[in-house]
Amino acid sequence: MKASGIITLVTDFGLSDPYVAMMKGVILSINPAAKLIDISHQISAGSTLQGASIVNESFPFFPGGTVHVAVIDPGVGSNRRPIAIQSEGQFFVGPDNGLFWPAINGKKGVKIIHLTESRYFLDHITYTFHGREVFAPVAAHLSLGVDVERMGPALKDPIQLNFPKPKKRDGTLFGQVIRMDNFGNLITNIHHKELQAFLKSSQPIIEVGKLVIKKLNQIYSHVSEGEPLALINSSNWLEIAVNLGRASEYIGIDSGEVIGAQVKVNRR
Amino acid sequence: MKASGIITLVTDFGLSDPYVAMMKGVILSINPAAKLIDISHQISAGSTLQGASIVNESFPFFPGGTVHVAVIDPGVGSNRRPIAIQSEGQFFVGPDNGLFWPAINGKKGVKIIHLTESRYFLDHITYTFHGREVFAPVAAHLSLGVDVERMGPALKDPIQLNFPKPKKRDGTLFGQVIRMDNFGNLITNIHHKELQAFLKSSQPIIEVGKLVIKKLNQIYSHVSEGEPLALINSSNWLEIAVNLGRASEYIGIDSGEVIGAQVKVNRR
Amino acid sequence: MKASGIITLVTDFGLSDPYVAMMKGVILSINPAAKLIDISHQISAGSTLQGASIVNESFPFFPGGTVHVAVIDPGVGSNRRPIAIQSEGQFFVGPDNGLFWPAINGKKGVKIIHLTESRYFLDHITYTFHGREVFAPVAAHLSLGVDVERMGPALKDPIQLNFPKPKKRDGTLFGQVIRMDNFGNLITNIHHKELQAFLKSSQPIIEVGKLVIKKLNQIYSHVSEGEPLALINSSNWLEIAVNLGRASEYIGIDSGEVIGAQVKVNRR
Repeated sequence: MKASGIITLVTDFGLSDPYVAMMKGVILSINPAAKLIDISHQISAGSTLQGASIVNESFPFFPGGTVHVAVIDPGVGSNRRPIAIQSEGQFFVGPDNGLFWPAINGKKGVKIIHLTESRYFLDHITYTFHGREVFAPVAAHLSLGVDVERMGPALKDPIQLNFPKPKKRDGTLFGQVIRMDNFGNLITNIHHKELQAFLKSSQPIIEVGKLVIKKLNQIYSHVSEGEPLALINSSNWLEIAVNLGRASEYIGIDSGEVIGAQVKVNRR
Repeated sequence: MKASGIITLVTDFGLSDPYVAMMKGVILSINPAAKLIDISHQISAGSTLQGASIVNESFPFFPGGTVHVAVIDPGVGSNRRPIAIQSEGQFFVGPDNGLFWPAINGKKGVKIIHLTESRYFLDHITYTFHGREVFAPVAAHLSLGVDVERMGPALKDPIQLNFPKPKKRDGTLFGQVIRMDNFGNLITNIHHKELQAFLKSSQPIIEVGKLVIKKLNQIYSHVSEGEPLALINSSNWLEIAVNLGRASEYIGIDSGEVIGAQVKVNRR
Repeated sequence: MKASGIITLVTDFGLSDPYVAMMKGVILSINPAAKLIDISHQISAGSTLQGASIVNESFPFFPGGTVHVAVIDPGVGSNRRPIAIQSEGQFFVGPDNGLFWPAINGKKGVKIIHLTESRYFLDHITYTFHGREVFAPVAAHLSLGVDVERMGPALKDPIQLNFPKPKKRDGTLFGQVIRMDNFGNLITNIHHKELQAFLKSSQPIIEVGKLVIKKLNQIYSHVSEGEPLALINSSNWLEIAVNLGRASEYIGIDSGEVIGAQVKVNRR
């Protein structure tokens, strides 16, 4: 697989501290021509679930041979393993804690490497910042075309992620809100395909908190300003939104409890 | 006009979600050499006024042939038209909702194209993310030198923006606060030239909320720490500031009502 | 010294306004091949101390010949001098207000230049945005290989920064919290070397607010979830943290007073 020279970054480091820039400096010291793209640095601290979902939704839009580095790494310095993966024509680099599970689960031709060849790391490894000293330099070397299999032995038992799945019970489909975006849109774990298989030719009755929606719309402006709607979003998930407003403030659930809130779908 | 290879981005997507990165991935898949520059992703949701003002203040600092993509697009998926513009030696790409009005209003040699040639789009178009599927790929093709006129027919009636203008009444100039910056500086809609034409050789009396300022200063540190001042800012607008402090907290107006607050100028 | 073509940026401009992008547009108009890396734009308004600390921790990770622009510039337009520095194989550009003091203090072969040669500036200089009109173009010219000594005369008396230093008194080492990172970790002004010289072979008793910690750990996960710990961080400073939590919320000090909070170290 040919490297694209592009390296993307997902972390929970935020944008105030110099940590992301240190990783970029390390990468450019090894591959001055690397093209660096920030995906998000505002993952909730330690949330591998959120990080995994962001990585998995973004990577397909990048050219083949792009290196995706994700550092949500609460176990840094412990015995959790550093890994690099080749899957779906792309590379993934980070801690072995489930971050890349959706990008490899059920996929063919996946190579998972336990990063042990320290010649691809910085010389000095601290206990608390392997993003800078292990993952950044490994990503830089991959972006230069180094074969991932030279970086360590194959790893057969990657940590899996318990991504919450919707459940059917008594003729109802139960899902949950897994992400709220910048617009206050509530993104659920109910995939388009699963919803269609459940509804067949029926119309849905969708309930979140005090809100009840009785159809699927296609676009936000098909309802009046301030009115709620349900739609399949651009990543194929069932989403609850308010046209020109914030669904997160509409459903009558404490803002701290929006993530994880139950979503009930019935057939009408 | 020769493309510079630079593409700037203005959106209301925020920095937590992967939406901006998806657009960048699409762009780099078409033009791997594109240079991507974020202008701001923190436009208030749906505020074409704020977006238009940011685009209009920024674009003149970029090399000729730069492509400026702006996606503040509450009408996405409706019949609002996707457009590309050539004006002032630069390109602009986004929804036809007034975002680019200040960049074309009264300018010569402007070309406005209704984007209809779908070979410049992604193959699959969702209902809710034309930033990714229409505007990003069009921008990438423009940055490669594709002639904008090949992308669709000319459009004669672009949506105009109602940018609030200052008014003179009974010898007073009435303007308003249109933006608050990161320092709490209050940027008004009163342009340097309009102020000078109004004041002639007089000194001003400027009132915002409970605050009265009786002269124009040139630099923040010409008043003491914590003291308010009025100045013409680096983009030529009348600005109310507090040296080493926040004017937004000084004027005695509820923070939610700072934007739009009346600014009164009299001659002293 | 050969320029790397990389330019880093540290400002207190935030991420909503177009100010950073204007600087980037100016740079790319002069050096279209410049590689732009944001370090942080969320320095507290006017905090040269915070800016200096971020610049000083980041620059060593970049390739030699990188240009580091820092614009925390409350004195813009006054008689504070614009400077460019060559030190430690890197360039630094910004106002002479102490921002670069840690990068030059005690270093050999430092060149400090008072920027007076206006042919390296934009033609039009405003009173309030020298980041755009002086520092950005100077950085672009340095990144193209222009000799810094052509940009003005040597400057012998740069403004120094009063970086608060730990003090020993009655057998106790007194330091303070100087930064809180995105994880709520409290970074102190006590350097690894100073701590070791003080402790020798003893174990420490570390006190911050109501919190008492009686040992140094190496990694966050060596204590239970929600438990506090002290460690030497990846930049060699004594840091107070809570595993999978926020030390800033644990120590019982008002959030507004965390920065500057006293840190006491005794020998056990």
